[in-house]
Amino acid sequence: MSEIKRFDDLADFSTEEISALLALSNRLERHPEPEALKGKVLSLLFLNPSLRTLASFQASMTRLGGGAFVISPEMSIHGLETRPGIVMDGAAAEHVREAVPVIASYGDALGLRAFAEGRNLTEDLEDREYRGLAELVSTPLINMESAINHPCQSLADWKTMDDLDIPVSAGKFVLSWAYHPLALPLAVPAATIQMAAMRGMDVTVLRPGGFELPDVVMNKARRLAERFGGSVQETDNRSEALDGAHVVYAKSWSSTRHYGDKHSDYQLRNQHEDWCVDEPWFQPAETNCRFMHCLPVRRNVVVSEAVLDGPRSVVVAEARNRMWVQMAVLYAMLGPGL
Amino acid sequence: MSEIKRFDDLADFSTEEISALLALSNRLERHPEPEALKGKVLSLLFLNPSLRTLASFQASMTRLGGGAFVISPEMSIHGLETRPGIVMDGAAAEHVREAVPVIASYGDALGLRAFAEGRNLTEDLEDREYRGLAELVSTPLINMESAINHPCQSLADWKTMDDLDIPVSAGKFVLSWAYHPLALPLAVPAATIQMAAMRGMDVTVLRPGGFELPDVVMNKARRLAERFGGSVQETDNRSEALDGAHVVYAKSWSSTRHYGDKHSDYQLRNQHEDWCVDEPWFQPAETNCRFMHCLPVRRNVVVSEAVLDGPRSVVVAEARNRMWVQMAVLYAMLGPGL
Amino acid sequence: MSEIKRFDDLADFSTEEISALLALSNRLERHPEPEALKGKVLSLLFLNPSLRTLASFQASMTRLGGGAFVISPEMSIHGLETRPGIVMDGAAAEHVREAVPVIASYGDALGLRAFAEGRNLTEDLEDREYRGLAELVSTPLINMESAINHPCQSLADWKTMDDLDIPVSAGKFVLSWAYHPLALPLAVPAATIQMAAMRGMDVTVLRPGGFELPDVVMNKARRLAERFGGSVQETDNRSEALDGAHVVYAKSWSSTRHYGDKHSDYQLRNQHEDWCVDEPWFQPAETNCRFMHCLPVRRNVVVSEAVLDGPRSVVVAEARNRMWVQMAVLYAMLGPGL
Repeated sequence: MSEIKRFDDLADFSTEEISALLALSNRLERHPEPEALKGKVLSLLFLNPSLRTLASFQASMTRLGGGAFVISPEMSIHGLETRPGIVMDGAAAEHVREAVPVIASYGDALGLRAFAEGRNLTEDLEDREYRGLAELVSTPLINMESAINHPCQSLADWKTMDDLDIPVSAGKFVLSWAYHPLALPLAVPAATIQMAAMRGMDVTVLRPGGFELPDVVMNKARRLAERFGGSVQETDNRSEALDGAHVVYAKSWSSTRHYGDKHSDYQLRNQHEDWCVDEPWFQPAETNCRFMHCLPVRRNVVVSEAVLDGPRSVVVAEARNRMWVQMAVLYAMLGPGL
Repeated sequence: MSEIKRFDDLADFSTEEISALLALSNRLERHPEPEALKGKVLSLLFLNPSLRTLASFQASMTRLGGGAFVISPEMSIHGLETRPGIVMDGAAAEHVREAVPVIASYGDALGLRAFAEGRNLTEDLEDREYRGLAELVSTPLINMESAINHPCQSLADWKTMDDLDIPVSAGKFVLSWAYHPLALPLAVPAATIQMAAMRGMDVTVLRPGGFELPDVVMNKARRLAERFGGSVQETDNRSEALDGAHVVYAKSWSSTRHYGDKHSDYQLRNQHEDWCVDEPWFQPAETNCRFMHCLPVRRNVVVSEAVLDGPRSVVVAEARNRMWVQMAVLYAMLGPGL
Repeated sequence: MSEIKRFDDLADFSTEEISALLALSNRLERHPEPEALKGKVLSLLFLNPSLRTLASFQASMTRLGGGAFVISPEMSIHGLETRPGIVMDGAAAEHVREAVPVIASYGDALGLRAFAEGRNLTEDLEDREYRGLAELVSTPLINMESAINHPCQSLADWKTMDDLDIPVSAGKFVLSWAYHPLALPLAVPAATIQMAAMRGMDVTVLRPGGFELPDVVMNKARRLAERFGGSVQETDNRSEALDGAHVVYAKSWSSTRHYGDKHSDYQLRNQHEDWCVDEPWFQPAETNCRFMHCLPVRRNVVVSEAVLDGPRSVVVAEARNRMWVQMAVLYAMLGPGL
């Protein structure tokens, strides 16, 4: 891989390519290259809220000598219409069909965030909105979280586990559903289990009934596990899941049984307010079992303060690693290459 | 011209100066100079919404090795008062009389956007707000769209036509009014016809009765046409206007018959919902007749999707050229000069 | 002082250190060093509105060859919770306990703005919120205005007086309370009198009854005055205060008699609408007596237009000096040092 054109999905890359990206990100962390992307521009388009992504991509470009600009919906722009074929006589004065190629045209690459609609599971699993917008872009493109993927987060999480010497082949990775008052997207859980599977780990998805991950997600992760030497299973048995775990990665997501039906989702999830990751969860786990989360996280709802502020928690390291891995992606995309 | 101090109006520049700016922008497009404005700062003050201008000016500065910062009204600032002589005991905590010189003082140049009030035609034609604010600025200044001008857009449009080999002296340029649900400013139509006139083209303003461009705008364009070898006429006859046209530039604007009277304007404009530029318009025109628009544009209101997504449309190229021409202006203003 | 790790309070620095910072800022004003902070990142976190600070810090980093990114509450982030120990089942999806270290982790230094709550005088005088957040930060840190301090403003004001050759030891500095419709924080008055005291000036606080500065603020300023050769007194007698003054620095602040009790504060302050600094105030003062204010300022409420737009006023110079002194602080923090 001499150059990356699209960073849509970690599963598009080989082990060698991912190893090279991780090695590059470690090198850039230790040895700054503030001239590598001199005069280069990263366009950042957020169709949804952001903090880490917003900050870390700007910091990434500055550290490499380039720069970024941000367009996001709360700005005083003209309202962005996304529906195809519409007669635009309402509030929105601009359509994404112009906005996206124009914004992309000012940069050497585009970062794009477009969350799931959360209405139609098939559409979200196909990443229809992101793919539709991506078709409008002729520059290199980075997925900054779409309906079903979050490759920058996954690469950062991979680096975080490497930094902590968490075992690869014998490593046990638990992705645990957690309670949250809202029905959240599937992007992070889907991206996370495939990342852990690609890292060759034994992955367990722990969740209550009704929150099973969709077959298409589980099957993709299983195929990757087979290729990379890991395994993927699913359970609602907490002590079984955590037995021997090296990592508990917490995340809330929508009920897949009631996807798009908020009322039924809330009725179901509200029966599981006890799914707040807490110290007793870790009793059967490895002493050094780590707690991971992509942030933002609701304290004492998704995870207790005892865990989040304690020595298990590596959430700030994960967030910081966003910067180093994104620098590697940008360097491979716009700079000297991999 | 060794240096530009103000970029207020394209009409302030000679053919030679504009040729030099266009040549410079073409050079910077092909040969990056990421050290030209090293350590230089562009202050950007938006008193009105923006997308292309916001993005393209930041990208322009990054590509030349400098940087920009943005102040815009939706930010968490303190509310900006513009009225002179006021006792500031209301919501606004800051007056433009301090804000503008302060913001300007942090930059080597200031970009300023201040739209028309749309209440008083005389004031807007005199560009009273922009001129009033410009008086507070001692640094170099760039008009990022004022009540009656938009020189960056015009220079980008000029470059776009050059890039497409659209004829100069024999070129026929049609500025067509189009339907839009709101009463929009005169800045783009005024700037556009004078640009086309300065390019030496035969300019036709096509609009329904009641949407005549003001005499002061038409007369200025006619004087420029005389100086630069073009011509300017006005009509409401579509087939006559489009006969032999090389470019149809669509734009909506306020009724000048009812300027500042929204009710009467809407009554009049709503009779012209059929002024949506569509393929049949082009039947009598040149086969290769191009469609231009400054964006944002309302699909299927101002122009049909067939035209906008079809091969005539050069709207993304126009937007992208904003960046290259602005880089030339900034380079001439703050860098090695023209 | 080879390096600054924290810029929390001007009182933490010796005369020699402040002289060195001022000399450095003068040098950077005259001799740009656009490579000094190449590839360095300043994280900027605003928990409160900003204009000068927002603009000047970004400009500062660009002028030194680095860059900054901004996170502020009006952005489309996830809502920031600040209360400790809370169960986050409400609107806010992120806690400052994660957000602050994460934002800091992307930068080589963090700038942090956190205004006074204005409810509890003891807490605000102890700068409890800023100190609490600062504990979460392991990078170098800059106070961009806290409940009780504003060291960047103070250093800029110091430079402004130096630039104008305003006397040091024999200089008479009047901080005058002024009318404003809202109960504003004590940060600027507290920082300003200690700055003037450290500069060795004779400082008079002029305010109506009920607006006395708190003992802890006055005593700290008096101790600094003793150490640096100045003096500090307080009065409600305007002509006495202004007699021989070189500077009148206007600022409104909360009633300390009714701190946290808005109703009583407003009843008291509304009796003093005549405290609008105007030309007659300066009759007994030095002819060249300067008018200073940190901005934003309410025209014809805090100060008359005659004064603000007249030759006494140096408010734009103060604001511009924010940039030069901050560049010196950043250079000492992240660059070649002092």
